[in-house]
Parts: sequence; C-alpha cells; structure tokens
Amino acid sequence: MLTNRKEIQIEWGDCDPFGIVFFPRYFEYFDACTNALFHRALGIGKAEMLRKYTIAGIPLVQASCNFSVPSSFGDVVTVESCVTSWGNSSFSVQHRLFRSETLAVEGLEKRVWTVRVAGAGSKAKSQAIPREIIEKFT
Amino acid sequence: MLTNRKEIQIEWGDCDPFGIVFFPRYFEYFDACTNALFHRALGIGKAEMLRKYTIAGIPLVQASCNFSVPSSFGDVVTVESCVTSWGNSSFSVQHRLFRSETLAVEGLEKRVWTVRVAGAGSKAKSQAIPREIIEKFT
Amino acid sequence: MLTNRKEIQIEWGDCDPFGIVFFPRYFEYFDACTNALFHRALGIGKAEMLRKYTIAGIPLVQASCNFSVPSSFGDVVTVESCVTSWGNSSFSVQHRLFRSETLAVEGLEKRVWTVRVAGAGSKAKSQAIPREIIEKFT
Amino acid sequence: MLTNRKEIQIEWGDCDPFGIVFFPRYFEYFDACTNALFHRALGIGKAEMLRKYTIAGIPLVQASCNFSVPSSFGDVVTVESCVTSWGNSSFSVQHRLFRSETLAVEGLEKRVWTVRVAGAGSKAKSQAIPREIIEKFT
Repeated sequence: MLTNRKEIQIEWGDCDPFGIVFFPRYFEYFDACTNALFHRALGIGKAEMLRKYTIAGIPLVQASCNFSVPSSFGDVVTVESCVTSWGNSSFSVQHRLFRSETLAVEGLEKRVWTVRVAGAGSKAKSQAIPREIIEKFT
Repeated sequence: MLTNRKEIQIEWGDCDPFGIVFFPRYFEYFDACTNALFHRALGIGKAEMLRKYTIAGIPLVQASCNFSVPSSFGDVVTVESCVTSWGNSSFSVQHRLFRSETLAVEGLEKRVWTVRVAGAGSKAKSQAIPREIIEKFT
Repeated sequence: MLTNRKEIQIEWGDCDPFGIVFFPRYFEYFDACTNALFHRALGIGKAEMLRKYTIAGIPLVQASCNFSVPSSFGDVVTVESCVTSWGNSSFSVQHRLFRSETLAVEGLEKRVWTVRVAGAGSKAKSQAIPREIIEKFT
Repeated sequence: MLTNRKEIQIEWGDCDPFGIVFFPRYFEYFDACTNALFHRALGIGKAEMLRKYTIAGIPLVQASCNFSVPSSFGDVVTVESCVTSWGNSSFSVQHRLFRSETLAVEGLEKRVWTVRVAGAGSKAKSQAIPREIIEKFT
C-alpha cells in the first residue's frame, strides 16, 4: 500500500483568534495531500491527470476528521496519506497528521472518479476508475 | 430545539477549477452557522460570549460532512443548524444545507467548551458548559 | 455612476491570531463585491454573465488596499463599490469598506475582460469590453 | 540586504473556476513569505518573535500587487522577499514571485510593528522597531 508523506508548515493565516489552526484548513491540507499522493503514484501532476484520463476531478462525497491535538503557526507537521479502499468509481483516502511522534489529526475522505457529461454544461457523473490507476497504488 | 437558518451566497472564490464549491469551504460555512446559532440563542455575538463566559473558544474535536449535491458560484443556499446533543463539556451541532428544497450537504460538528489554563500560555482545557447556556437552546 | 452596497459579516474564520481580519480576506470580500456590482448592473449573475458574453472571467492585473481601521469577528461592515474607469479591455473598481461611518479599508482593483483562446487549452487573452456592458454602469 | 527565497506549490484549492490562482491567495503566500523572511533574519519563528519582543503582530497598513502571468495548480513558484525600507515603526516588504525565470507577480506590503495597549482589550498601537531587528536584515 503506497503511503505518501508530506510536510506542512502551519502558517499565521491558517490560525484563528484562538491561536490554533482554524479547522477547515486541515481539510485543505488533506486535499493537497491527496493530490500529492496521486502525483507520487502516477508520476504526473493533477492537471496532467485530468487531461490524460479526461476526468473533471475527484470530488468528495464524504469527509470526516478527528482533532486530537491542536497546532499553531510555526509548527511543522507531517501528513501520511494512503488509499484505504477502492470501489468501482469511488475510493477512500486516509490522512494522519503528526506533530513529532504524536498523531494530532486524523482525516478520511471518500472521493469519486468524475467525468463531465458531454453537452450538459457543468453536469458531471461518476465513472469506473481505470484498472491501471489502482495498480499504481499497490 | 432551537434551529437557526442562515442564507449563504456561494462566491466565485469559494469554487475550485471544477467550478464547484471547494469542499473545505462548507466547513467554513458551518463554522459561521454555529456562531450564528449561538448568537441567536444567547442574544450576544461570539466576542461578547467569549468575554462573558471567559472561554477561549469552542474548538472542534470531530467534524464530518456528506456532500450529495454540488453548488456553484451565484447559488444561494440555506443552512439549518441546531445542537443535537449536550454533554458535560462537549456538544454536537448539525448543519443541513439546502439548495431550494434539496438537501445538498449535511455536516456534523462536535465541539468543546474550552478555557485557557491560567499562566500556561496557549494551553487550554475543557470546562463544564454552564446550565444557562443549554437552557437557551431549548 | 452606479454604486453597489454590500453588507459583510466578519467571521471568526476570517480573523488571525491577532484577533483581527487576516488582510487577504479583504481582497476576497472585494472580489465578491465586484461580482455583486456586476450582478446589480447587468441583472444577471456571474455564471450567466460568463456564458452570455463567452468570457472566461475578469481576472486582475493589479490590486491595492489601504487598511486604516481593523475589524474583528462579529463586526458587520458595509462596502461601497463602483467602477471608476473603463479602458478598452480593462477597468478599475473601487471598494470602500465602512464600519459605521468610518472608512476602514479602501481597495482598488484593475481587471481585464478575458476570453479563452480557442484550441489553446487554458490560454486566455483580453478582449474589448462590449459597449452595452459599460452603458449599464452609467 | 537580506533576501529570502521560498518555494510555493500552487494547490488545486488555491485556484478558481477559471483554473488560475484566485488572487487573494497571492497575498496569503506573501504573508507566509514575510514570516519566513523574519524567521531567517532573526533565527526564531513568529510565535517566539511575538513573545520575545512582546508585540501583537506586524499587521498591514497597505498592500499592493501586480499580476503579470497567471499560475495554476501543480505549478511550483519561487518568491524572493526582502525589506526595502525601514521607518520608525513601519517597514515595507517586497515580494517577487517567479515561474522559472519569469517574474509573474510582484507584491508590496507596508507593515507596522504593533503592541497591545495594556488594559485596553484588543486595542493596539505602533511602536518603534528595535534597532537589533533592523540590523539583522543588513
């Protein structure tokens, strides 16, 4: 199971008046981590992935997060990300954010391999994930 | 059970290259909705609430979301928010985001009534939620 | 000269550990205000405007801001926005953000009427602003 | 004159429905670059800087940006940042964002060395920048 590690520097602008990371920022970090994981697995960036597989994106149908330990600006954290399950057109990504050795935040995303419906403006629908994609994660 | 309704206009800057709301923005919306719900229940804004009850905030320990129907810039959506359960120092808030009559996104937050630890910098700990707070929601 | 007024509620998540609005958020507010100004002038939302005039957007070539008075979560501010000059393909938008009667932030955007270059992927170029657009602002 | 270089990966979530960086994100990048520049000059992070010099922050009174070349998700850009002038309590920071060799965005910030007013809640005022700070940039 391919796991990608990404280092993230918590920025001043990511934190709220409490002085800790405003929680939606964790979901932003994790979105970037999913893209980094796919980049590592496929060897191409997201823009090229969208073109090559003619998909519109990999939007979410579900996201969840447990926040155990807060972080603040200046902290450097590490996120370990991996795909934990593959469906026909959907897949789940797990993210574990560490401060030093401590698991601080744990996130789960369920995403869908999505194409635009031809001639229907911004309409989109799910599509089977190509076998070759899945193989690159194992 | 007190329910607050908040109208949200989806902005261009909330949307991603797919043309739909970048999912962490929903968590931002919901954070604003929780604050609006408390404002309505207590009759005072968040800044005054923090002062009056000498708390540092109501940070999250858990957040989750189901995304059923995408929205895009220009859409005006309505979020219905209510507290679904009260613990000793924690509570859960449910948010249901509607496009017209359609339930498009459903979110759940678990938050903690949190005070700063005196003389310990940015350290914080949970505290029992005052009875009078809870009563204002019923 | 058409002026649009937009009320903005400053949210907790817009503020930094100092407790005041993180300054890039003002540029986000102003982007929303420009869209609201065009909506008011044209009578159609941005999505429909892009379709009707087959433009890709109205991206910026310049933005500037003076921050005189800070704002914080819970504050409700009013932004007055108007187009101050029209070029052939560019135009300038002025935003004045008020707290009660006090001018707190003043922003200026220079934007370009932009179309995609056919058959060139994401390439874009400026185009003359239709006369009918300009007329709707006067 | 001390110059700091910071590499930034443009993320999917930083881009708008046009497919290019939503312009307020550049100001967020530059805020992070200013903090990185101070970190490099002083040898301590922002949290420690605030504590050591008992300041509340270095908020902006002015910000401006020229956007010459757009960037999109997957691009890796480099920002060169330096302080271009020191006043008594204010200073200016220049940021030049490059895509390969091309100057794509140029930003200027004017910031103020700011302390809280004792016993006045969130009130703040400017203060003379310590000589030792300025010396570390030369």
